[in-house]
Amino acid sequence: MRERRVPDLELVAQTEKEEEEEDLFDYFYDKPGSLPGTLIIEEDAAPSKIVLIDYNESNATRIHVVNPEDCTLYLDTESVSWVDVSGLGSEDILQRLGKVFDLHPLVLEDVVNVPQRPKIENYDDQLVIIAQMVMPKEKGDGFWIEQVSFVLGKHYLLTVQEEPQRDCFGPVRDRIRTNKGSVRKSGTDYLAYALLDALIDGFFPVLEDYGERIEELEDEVLRNPTRQTLEKIYQLRRELLALRRSIWPQRNAINSLIRGDSDLISPNVQIYLRDCYDHTVQVMDMVETYRELASGLMDVYLSSVGNKMNEIMKFLTVISTIFIPLTFIAGVYGMNFEYMPELKVRWGYFACWGIMVAIAVALCYFFWRRGWFNNFSTIDND
Amino acid sequence: MRERRVPDLELVAQTEKEEEEEDLFDYFYDKPGSLPGTLIIEEDAAPSKIVLIDYNESNATRIHVVNPEDCTLYLDTESVSWVDVSGLGSEDILQRLGKVFDLHPLVLEDVVNVPQRPKIENYDDQLVIIAQMVMPKEKGDGFWIEQVSFVLGKHYLLTVQEEPQRDCFGPVRDRIRTNKGSVRKSGTDYLAYALLDALIDGFFPVLEDYGERIEELEDEVLRNPTRQTLEKIYQLRRELLALRRSIWPQRNAINSLIRGDSDLISPNVQIYLRDCYDHTVQVMDMVETYRELASGLMDVYLSSVGNKMNEIMKFLTVISTIFIPLTFIAGVYGMNFEYMPELKVRWGYFACWGIMVAIAVALCYFFWRRGWFNNFSTIDND
Amino acid sequence: MRERRVPDLELVAQTEKEEEEEDLFDYFYDKPGSLPGTLIIEEDAAPSKIVLIDYNESNATRIHVVNPEDCTLYLDTESVSWVDVSGLGSEDILQRLGKVFDLHPLVLEDVVNVPQRPKIENYDDQLVIIAQMVMPKEKGDGFWIEQVSFVLGKHYLLTVQEEPQRDCFGPVRDRIRTNKGSVRKSGTDYLAYALLDALIDGFFPVLEDYGERIEELEDEVLRNPTRQTLEKIYQLRRELLALRRSIWPQRNAINSLIRGDSDLISPNVQIYLRDCYDHTVQVMDMVETYRELASGLMDVYLSSVGNKMNEIMKFLTVISTIFIPLTFIAGVYGMNFEYMPELKVRWGYFACWGIMVAIAVALCYFFWRRGWFNNFSTIDND
Amino acid sequence: MRERRVPDLELVAQTEKEEEEEDLFDYFYDKPGSLPGTLIIEEDAAPSKIVLIDYNESNATRIHVVNPEDCTLYLDTESVSWVDVSGLGSEDILQRLGKVFDLHPLVLEDVVNVPQRPKIENYDDQLVIIAQMVMPKEKGDGFWIEQVSFVLGKHYLLTVQEEPQRDCFGPVRDRIRTNKGSVRKSGTDYLAYALLDALIDGFFPVLEDYGERIEELEDEVLRNPTRQTLEKIYQLRRELLALRRSIWPQRNAINSLIRGDSDLISPNVQIYLRDCYDHTVQVMDMVETYRELASGLMDVYLSSVGNKMNEIMKFLTVISTIFIPLTFIAGVYGMNFEYMPELKVRWGYFACWGIMVAIAVALCYFFWRRGWFNNFSTIDND
Amino acid sequence: MRERRVPDLELVAQTEKEEEEEDLFDYFYDKPGSLPGTLIIEEDAAPSKIVLIDYNESNATRIHVVNPEDCTLYLDTESVSWVDVSGLGSEDILQRLGKVFDLHPLVLEDVVNVPQRPKIENYDDQLVIIAQMVMPKEKGDGFWIEQVSFVLGKHYLLTVQEEPQRDCFGPVRDRIRTNKGSVRKSGTDYLAYALLDALIDGFFPVLEDYGERIEELEDEVLRNPTRQTLEKIYQLRRELLALRRSIWPQRNAINSLIRGDSDLISPNVQIYLRDCYDHTVQVMDMVETYRELASGLMDVYLSSVGNKMNEIMKFLTVISTIFIPLTFIAGVYGMNFEYMPELKVRWGYFACWGIMVAIAVALCYFFWRRGWFNNFSTIDND
Repeated sequence: MRERRVPDLELVAQTEKEEEEEDLFDYFYDKPGSLPGTLIIEEDAAPSKIVLIDYNESNATRIHVVNPEDCTLYLDTESVSWVDVSGLGSEDILQRLGKVFDLHPLVLEDVVNVPQRPKIENYDDQLVIIAQMVMPKEKGDGFWIEQVSFVLGKHYLLTVQEEPQRDCFGPVRDRIRTNKGSVRKSGTDYLAYALLDALIDGFFPVLEDYGERIEELEDEVLRNPTRQTLEKIYQLRRELLALRRSIWPQRNAINSLIRGDSDLISPNVQIYLRDCYDHTVQVMDMVETYRELASGLMDVYLSSVGNKMNEIMKFLTVISTIFIPLTFIAGVYGMNFEYMPELKVRWGYFACWGIMVAIAVALCYFFWRRGWFNNFSTIDND
Repeated sequence: MRERRVPDLELVAQTEKEEEEEDLFDYFYDKPGSLPGTLIIEEDAAPSKIVLIDYNESNATRIHVVNPEDCTLYLDTESVSWVDVSGLGSEDILQRLGKVFDLHPLVLEDVVNVPQRPKIENYDDQLVIIAQMVMPKEKGDGFWIEQVSFVLGKHYLLTVQEEPQRDCFGPVRDRIRTNKGSVRKSGTDYLAYALLDALIDGFFPVLEDYGERIEELEDEVLRNPTRQTLEKIYQLRRELLALRRSIWPQRNAINSLIRGDSDLISPNVQIYLRDCYDHTVQVMDMVETYRELASGLMDVYLSSVGNKMNEIMKFLTVISTIFIPLTFIAGVYGMNFEYMPELKVRWGYFACWGIMVAIAVALCYFFWRRGWFNNFSTIDND
Repeated sequence: MRERRVPDLELVAQTEKEEEEEDLFDYFYDKPGSLPGTLIIEEDAAPSKIVLIDYNESNATRIHVVNPEDCTLYLDTESVSWVDVSGLGSEDILQRLGKVFDLHPLVLEDVVNVPQRPKIENYDDQLVIIAQMVMPKEKGDGFWIEQVSFVLGKHYLLTVQEEPQRDCFGPVRDRIRTNKGSVRKSGTDYLAYALLDALIDGFFPVLEDYGERIEELEDEVLRNPTRQTLEKIYQLRRELLALRRSIWPQRNAINSLIRGDSDLISPNVQIYLRDCYDHTVQVMDMVETYRELASGLMDVYLSSVGNKMNEIMKFLTVISTIFIPLTFIAGVYGMNFEYMPELKVRWGYFACWGIMVAIAVALCYFFWRRGWFNNFSTIDND
Repeated sequence: MRERRVPDLELVAQTEKEEEEEDLFDYFYDKPGSLPGTLIIEEDAAPSKIVLIDYNESNATRIHVVNPEDCTLYLDTESVSWVDVSGLGSEDILQRLGKVFDLHPLVLEDVVNVPQRPKIENYDDQLVIIAQMVMPKEKGDGFWIEQVSFVLGKHYLLTVQEEPQRDCFGPVRDRIRTNKGSVRKSGTDYLAYALLDALIDGFFPVLEDYGERIEELEDEVLRNPTRQTLEKIYQLRRELLALRRSIWPQRNAINSLIRGDSDLISPNVQIYLRDCYDHTVQVMDMVETYRELASGLMDVYLSSVGNKMNEIMKFLTVISTIFIPLTFIAGVYGMNFEYMPELKVRWGYFACWGIMVAIAVALCYFFWRRGWFNNFSTIDND
Repeated sequence: MRERRVPDLELVAQTEKEEEEEDLFDYFYDKPGSLPGTLIIEEDAAPSKIVLIDYNESNATRIHVVNPEDCTLYLDTESVSWVDVSGLGSEDILQRLGKVFDLHPLVLEDVVNVPQRPKIENYDDQLVIIAQMVMPKEKGDGFWIEQVSFVLGKHYLLTVQEEPQRDCFGPVRDRIRTNKGSVRKSGTDYLAYALLDALIDGFFPVLEDYGERIEELEDEVLRNPTRQTLEKIYQLRRELLALRRSIWPQRNAINSLIRGDSDLISPNVQIYLRDCYDHTVQVMDMVETYRELASGLMDVYLSSVGNKMNEIMKFLTVISTIFIPLTFIAGVYGMNFEYMPELKVRWGYFACWGIMVAIAVALCYFFWRRGWFNNFSTIDND
């Protein structure tokens, strides 16, 4: 599991945030050489809760299940049984679930030892989908990423989520309850589609946020690039990389679904999955576009740094160039030669000032003509 | 829909422009978990207008249709019926159209909830093409991009455009009306080809504009690069990226058309579509070429910034190097030692001036020989 | 057509050159929505001339044809008839040619409305090849690029070139006339091969020129990089990009030829085409290599700019560092304190000079030891 | 063999380390033209030790074998015989092993002349797998990389490791001894899987270490980039490149295993190998991600260098700009004109000071307003 | 032929070297339009020598052949006849050889007109392999590259090399003479393998040299980057590019050999060729790795240039910052105001010195604290 839940203190929040960032890129791994199929339960994982929704066209029941074995009754009936598990903290319950659903030990391992790379696996009469959902944090602050696993059987669908708090299946539950759309009239495959679709659609708001951040950064980098801008661009690229890593294998997984590798998916639902696949392609497309824009921003930032240096150098050069000749003149008339005719002249001092002013004005005009004064406003705060 | 229609005020126009830019990269997305097939109507969308053109070799009629159901009469006759809908503002009309043409809910959704990624979908007796047209704005100002959807049946073609004002089908309408070319002698597939071709050909003028902008930028970046140049290059890359995103999936879509995936396309029209495919390849080719040129321009800009700094530094160095020794000499003879023989010499002061002038001239000659004076003109305005 | 023919004035030449450069990357396009198969004749296009060479093993005739219809006699005889058209200025002749050879309107369009992307198209009893030839301009000045179209039938070969002046088929004509090699003993397919091969071989001299330009630039960029170097590198990359765009589709076209897509090509000639394909691959290979070298040159240029700045800064630093302490000392003894014992000492002034010289020498030695004086020669002219 | 074993001296350790680094990228190669199948024994290679573990569901024996021929007894029995050889120093033993297992001379060469590129080879009744294990050195110090070869027969598995000290098979040996999991119930293919899996899982701790190093570098490069940072980033990229080179061919090898190229692998074990393949993909994925992050870090470092220069230039500019005008004023009143009214005024000197202080304060305020004082802390130590 | 043979003069050697460099990237090409199959003999090509080695398991004869026709006797006997031609200077001999071996004119052209791109060609009863060998020059000085052509028949193998002096087949000749290994027991295909393998193995010493050069450059670029470093990196990338261009098509050629395209290769030799293919993959792998390292070095160099500038700027800034205030103070007390109380004070001068020393010490401390003095040693010689 990737996030602690009660960040009481600023400091804790800070430490946590860093941990999360790291986690964007790590997959779960066993101790090398450990037994395949070992479940690793994180200490701070939420206890597992099981909700069973059993429905057909006419009825829909929702039951909080305590003993996984209680599900058995529902699994082979004609009605659709959706067993939704959230929280990966209870090894005992998860192991028993594995037995109830007759999961291969490796499947149970993939479902529990998160995060895994999204993928699809065909077993004899089960289709296992490992997917990932994203959920925006507060604006401009990135996203949570969580594994959601699907085990699709003939009359049941088992879904396993990491965290009870973060859930994107609410609207589908509502559609089942209120019998809206065709979900109640269709089988488990349609349900799986509906949930997958909800999960993929969840990427769009996150991406929209990135679109806005990029626009803000474009403005910042062209008008007033600072050291913080650099940090923001780097952070952006980092998070887009994480998004890409998440969506890319999901695209491949859904693609292999619509190529009809499994007969648990009816042709009718394949059409819907094609739509869902289009959405993953669009997500990929947007992620790649944003990545290109972000890397273009880096180029622009780099040359902005150079431009800024030019402005600073110009400033120094203007100041130096104006005063150096004047100081030289002052130096000349500070010399102690006995015979220096200018010094005796009554208006010598004023003539000297006159010459100095004339030189300064001429140089200023020279610089003004070349436009060196135009952009000093751009070297402001950093 | 991506553009408001009555930009009364400069300020509004500004705000709008920014919104549009953002929109270059966003696809439409549903609220996560929403019912598949939901139509989202934008507030400022134009009301939908339906024009039906029914023709065969001898006759051609053009009718403004108010009730979508009125089309039904024409759809199954042998003559070609082209139903052209523009404006996505009337949900009711669009829903009824969907029924008249027996569209799958997902198709109707793709047609109405714009923009979608260009693609081709085969349904039993319909071929759905989601395409995008581009239309140049004023010179140097980018382009409008709009979705155009085609639903091709045996005896009818349904096209849906976003905006009544922006339309690239005029010349085809004329060819039907005046019975020019073979359009009146051919079926719906030829009509679809003719419209697609008009749409693809619309990319060329936009690209030509970019060719010119790149040429101007080449000149600017080599002769007088400024901060605005940077902004222009970035903007150029951004817009080319948008063009690429639009044309790439269309190329794939048309390619799958000419591979003969659908039997609604006759072999004769396939030859024409091959020509149309060649055009998309040419567009892709030009977009990629311009992208490479634009990214080469960025490199050149970067090194121009460095060159400019070199010029500024040279200027400062020349000024400093000439005056620093002179000021030193002036300082020496400003010292107050009691016994400084040079000070007593009558022509000492003038000798001092002579030495200083000699040093200055020698240094100038030194710099001139090394060519440091050549390029000061290049550090002009920024 | 891409080049005007009588550049009377320097200025005109200049304007023209720019137009040509632009043209390196533009394909021909119809007015959007125009009728497929429309021929567009450029005003300054050369009038079309037709030369027919009819030969078999024993005889070879060469005829200047005025009326395209005169070719008809020759087309179906067993002997090989090579109809070579140069100049695209006479719409009437071209249209009549189209009828004589029974060309599909789209083929005629591709042949006349140049430039098109190189490609191969199979028609029932014709093989259409759109190719491009290049021809070096004066040394170091790039190349002309022109479309050459082939229409290969059972007993005839139609070739269409843009410009009568630029022609690379001379050696093949000579071989036919003098009956050298196996061309007179072979069919139209061998003739097509021989012409294609001549056309592809024409890329090598152009590339050799680029090889030399790159070598010169390597020298320039490592020893004495100037602003012009940057321009030259950019120009080089631009032209190599154009070459790549031209050769890449030709490679694909010839590849599809040797995969035996058409039965107009005999197995014997396929072996020769394989050789021709090898040449296109070699051309591609050289173009890609030169592109990599050119992009490496850009990197080197960028860091040379930085190195140059280092040299300038070192120069300034050396000068400043030597004189600043001396000026300070002079300043100290220019102070007007009443009690400054050094000032009264008789040899004070000379001691002061001694100290200043000692400081200067010490600093010079310091800089000399660190090697700062070594590379000043490298910051010469820019 | 790539590492010496007894680094007595600091200096030796240093030399060695460099040698090892070099070795990350070199493959073994024969003297050109040497006889295929020649074994090259490194002088400092450890003497070869053979351990045979023979087990079935009920029994497990572990024998230290001195004469390779003693293995023969076990190879054809139904029980699984795992012959584990470590150390490549004894040519005689290795040659005899080759005979006992009937290895093709090229196989023996690949096994002994390390390192080879990971691969899989199918022989008639043997499957040869050349793999590589990694083992972390002390924290932040990279990793050891070693070849592990597998020869899988019907009833035996031969594994050959380079170094007895570095071994990742311990946990699997324990599972055999304690009869944990299904290893004792399964055949040689499962054993091969279990060992391969242990080996692949060994990449994760190494990668985790890199994840931490990247995080530290991110911090360093954004807050306080030094010359050492650059060296660290380069070193990081180097080592990630080595990891990639190691894991990439292993991924391909395992992929060809699960595509069922050999019938020595039972379908049941294929499922497990699929899991193992997923792990290699995850490793690849992490390596590629870290490589992208590392290359992003390089960009950030480059612009940090530029930012730092800006800060230094600002510092110099502030100091110069404040003092240059003041020094000029002092110079003016150091002039020796006879008639300079200000000099006679009693409070002239103080007024002069007042003006100078005012100028200094005004300039400071000017710079402070523009934020030039903010970031001086960032140009600290380098 | 690419190199002259008797470099008498330094200057000539220089010119030559440049020519060779150029030659790394050029392929041979005919005069455009020339007859296919024309042989081009370079003036300075070595005269062709023919050595025939005829062997079977019991006997081996080696004959210097003068007339190519003398080979005919041996070609159809059961024993293996290896005809090794070195030197491409004698057109007559080469033409007659072509007839003796019944070579297609295009094959003879590829063999004689070097360099060609490595490739494999299947003719009816011949297999033609165009390969390239490399041979290290003196250490750190690159490599010679030469074409070696193989024509494999049922009972003979014809090899053609460019230069008699550069030969990598010696060890194979020895194996034939001394009957070591299985070469005498095998057919022409094994001989071809043995020669190809010797040729590919010849790449490794060249690559090892590059490995060392990269290591040296890493050191140089991180510790003391100079202008020469830049040149060396560029040269390195250039030569690696040439190596890649040579090995890449050879890999493809050998790959098509092991895919069993020809039945002149027996299954047993295929196993050996697989090993040879592995070596080409390892060579490719090393070349690509070195290319990545070299391009990483370029990045490091670029930022080193920036770092160096920072050091120079710091030096200037430290010197300026320390002396500018002091000079200002000296200037103040050089003013000629009548009433300046400090000037009258007896210890004023010394107090003034005290203040100046205090300021200097404070500034030095300030800079020392910030670490500005640390890295001045790094801006040494350039």
